[in-house]
Amino acid sequence: MMPLNDTIVAPATAPGGALAVIRISGKNALEICDSIFVSPSGKTLARQAGNTILYGNIVDSCGEFIDETLVSVFKAPASYTGENMVEISCHGSRWIVDAILKAITEAGARLAGPGEFTVRAFMAGKMDLTQAEAVADMIASDNRASHSMASAQLRGAFSAELAAIRSSLLHLASLLELELDFSEEDVSFADRTELALLLDKAITEMTRLSESFSLGNAIKEGVSVAIIGKPNAGKSTLLNRLLGEDRAMVSDIAGTTRDIIEEKIVISGIGFRFIDTAGIRESDDTLERMGIERTYRSIEKARIILYMIDGTDTIDANVLNDIQSLHVSAEQKIAILVNKTDQTVTDTTLLSSSDTPVIKISAKFGDGMDELKTFLTSQIDTSELLEGHALVSNARHYEALHTATEALRTARTGIVSGLSSELLAEELRQGLDAIGTITGEICNDEILSQIFSKFCVGK
Amino acid sequence: MMPLNDTIVAPATAPGGALAVIRISGKNALEICDSIFVSPSGKTLARQAGNTILYGNIVDSCGEFIDETLVSVFKAPASYTGENMVEISCHGSRWIVDAILKAITEAGARLAGPGEFTVRAFMAGKMDLTQAEAVADMIASDNRASHSMASAQLRGAFSAELAAIRSSLLHLASLLELELDFSEEDVSFADRTELALLLDKAITEMTRLSESFSLGNAIKEGVSVAIIGKPNAGKSTLLNRLLGEDRAMVSDIAGTTRDIIEEKIVISGIGFRFIDTAGIRESDDTLERMGIERTYRSIEKARIILYMIDGTDTIDANVLNDIQSLHVSAEQKIAILVNKTDQTVTDTTLLSSSDTPVIKISAKFGDGMDELKTFLTSQIDTSELLEGHALVSNARHYEALHTATEALRTARTGIVSGLSSELLAEELRQGLDAIGTITGEICNDEILSQIFSKFCVGK
Repeated sequence: MMPLNDTIVAPATAPGGALAVIRISGKNALEICDSIFVSPSGKTLARQAGNTILYGNIVDSCGEFIDETLVSVFKAPASYTGENMVEISCHGSRWIVDAILKAITEAGARLAGPGEFTVRAFMAGKMDLTQAEAVADMIASDNRASHSMASAQLRGAFSAELAAIRSSLLHLASLLELELDFSEEDVSFADRTELALLLDKAITEMTRLSESFSLGNAIKEGVSVAIIGKPNAGKSTLLNRLLGEDRAMVSDIAGTTRDIIEEKIVISGIGFRFIDTAGIRESDDTLERMGIERTYRSIEKARIILYMIDGTDTIDANVLNDIQSLHVSAEQKIAILVNKTDQTVTDTTLLSSSDTPVIKISAKFGDGMDELKTFLTSQIDTSELLEGHALVSNARHYEALHTATEALRTARTGIVSGLSSELLAEELRQGLDAIGTITGEICNDEILSQIFSKFCVGK
Repeated sequence: MMPLNDTIVAPATAPGGALAVIRISGKNALEICDSIFVSPSGKTLARQAGNTILYGNIVDSCGEFIDETLVSVFKAPASYTGENMVEISCHGSRWIVDAILKAITEAGARLAGPGEFTVRAFMAGKMDLTQAEAVADMIASDNRASHSMASAQLRGAFSAELAAIRSSLLHLASLLELELDFSEEDVSFADRTELALLLDKAITEMTRLSESFSLGNAIKEGVSVAIIGKPNAGKSTLLNRLLGEDRAMVSDIAGTTRDIIEEKIVISGIGFRFIDTAGIRESDDTLERMGIERTYRSIEKARIILYMIDGTDTIDANVLNDIQSLHVSAEQKIAILVNKTDQTVTDTTLLSSSDTPVIKISAKFGDGMDELKTFLTSQIDTSELLEGHALVSNARHYEALHTATEALRTARTGIVSGLSSELLAEELRQGLDAIGTITGEICNDEILSQIFSKFCVGK
């Protein structure tokens, strides 16, 4: 793991702007920066009050001028990292940023690794691990929903829910451990009925959090929508239509499979990943069959499936049979899109007999797009987000919650089967430990480096 | 021209970093930001001292949380623009930046145009026009030489030289105008000999500045080096070799002509633009002749010409004849590169008889690269830069200097030919006006919008 007792430096802004910010943190941050900072009034950063800004020049180790800058001073512990910190705001030239980084490292600082400032903030108790992880999510957030989710986590909504669960479990565990101290006397401090009730409550809450992962992850990564159907139903036309209407947020995501086109589109503040698939039909062609195979795999992974049919074709029972054969899971939502309403559409009465919603559209001319968008956004329930509740969006949290819930379930069963206080306490401890790894009360170098290696440098 | 009495806002950093900075300037900057800023301690930006930093949340017009931020407060006139200013440092998410910009514009600010903050700094007398232009050059600088040149201009080296010239000319002009006031008495306050001496001095200095444009422009845009020679002499191999050794600074500049490949490479802190040309030979092929035509044009525009020959070919008088037929100008430098020293090289004694330097290289294996680089960098005299002298790097400055020098030359000739005080004073005024347009003492909306339209937004 990275050492914590030295002074680190990194650029905190992307190249190419009008200005760039370089961030320095550590116990010698002020002194190191003073050695390359020349204030016209002779002021030094070390003697400056915290949360103030000085104007001056940055020079290199030979005293050569590099840039006119504004330098912000933060004094421990009132800074992001809890250490002395300096932020240098310079002209946004890559050469200038490199020259200043060189001057600062020559003066005794070390180039920071990814997320190293946030590691220090976590180590200094400025935030727990879920909040530290939310910092990266905040930076990555590119729509209202993913931003709301990261915001709630950054502001401690998830930590607070975990803290409540943890506190009730700690109470139970301490009662059980008290029993162990008096084990020879065979007393029970922890009323088993109360224990069972509290465990049930904790399990319910943790299950709710676990179950929110599916939605949370979809919001974070973009809700996957597979557009499927027979060849030439108009799937690609629909994708282009949706892209054209939301061009600003379009991005090309090169897929791992060549034949599946994926585009991210934001609708009503929620990011959707539309997957345009190969048309499904019986085929003897090996390559086409491989494409269709991939289509089935993307159907499995999709949260929403849009089954598109050509409205000018005859609609018969085969359509409903086809949909049934997709084996859509309970978590997945499906709608039938009847395309080409700009032409004469055949009778669709048959479709209404199923539970599957039917939306009539013209991908070519844009009719029915509002209905389609309403359907899509209504599948994503953001009410909990709007109420400030935490959603789990992080696979690490999900797995820890799963481990914790398993332990609590074992304990719950144990109460019924008369498990000893010792083994009950052990299961509770395991549950508590798993929760502790989420917030970082329990953590090790491996967990930290896994989390922070995904951060950007300078954060 | 953009109005100056409202409050402007713009992102000042490029998207994609750990943090982003949003800049607000104008007389209502503090109040506008206060309407969307929530400090945990209830502090307001308006009551905050200048050059201090507050921690707090930015919210939208409905009070919805957008981000945790650090907000820097600058109070007029002690700010970049001379106005009240705020800089918001937020998480580097494009969505967050857009949401904050939206909140600030809804609160009454206007999105700033390119360079609009610097326009205000200029209007407030914080810098003259050459310094404002140097701000853009600082941001664009990508090597030591272009950075040194922009730095000198930013710090007023050019302005100072112009001010000295201007001050002596103003003195002369006022003496001549005094003569006009007493014109009926036929006195001469301005001693014609002294006038001639001072004009000569001004013309000499301005000519030096004008002449520095060729070097200054080369340093700013990259020194153009044409690699020419017969087909298969190894020109492209040399370009690849040079690129391979300095890969970090490589950039692809798509040329206007398809057949000329241009690559920028930094050598010893100076940017060079290498132009790989079509091989020169007699050809009946129309397309090849067009390529060769382009080669000749790039030779004309190049500052340095590397004439490459295949060292395994017989070297005869034709080589020297070919070089002479290139009509290299006095400003251009040329060297003969004898390539393929890794093979048996024929007698090169003949080449030594000319004044043209000869460098033996192996483009394939890298032999002789140090000598080549030494030759290249020695052609660019950066001694004036290192001494802090101004170099003219801006075509606008060059043209104004030219106009000014022409007027002074007319005045100088007029002294000899006994031109009237009135006409002498008129020429001096014209020279002074031209100098005034450089520093911005004389300027209009058209000049300003031409200059600042090339700036980035947020500066």
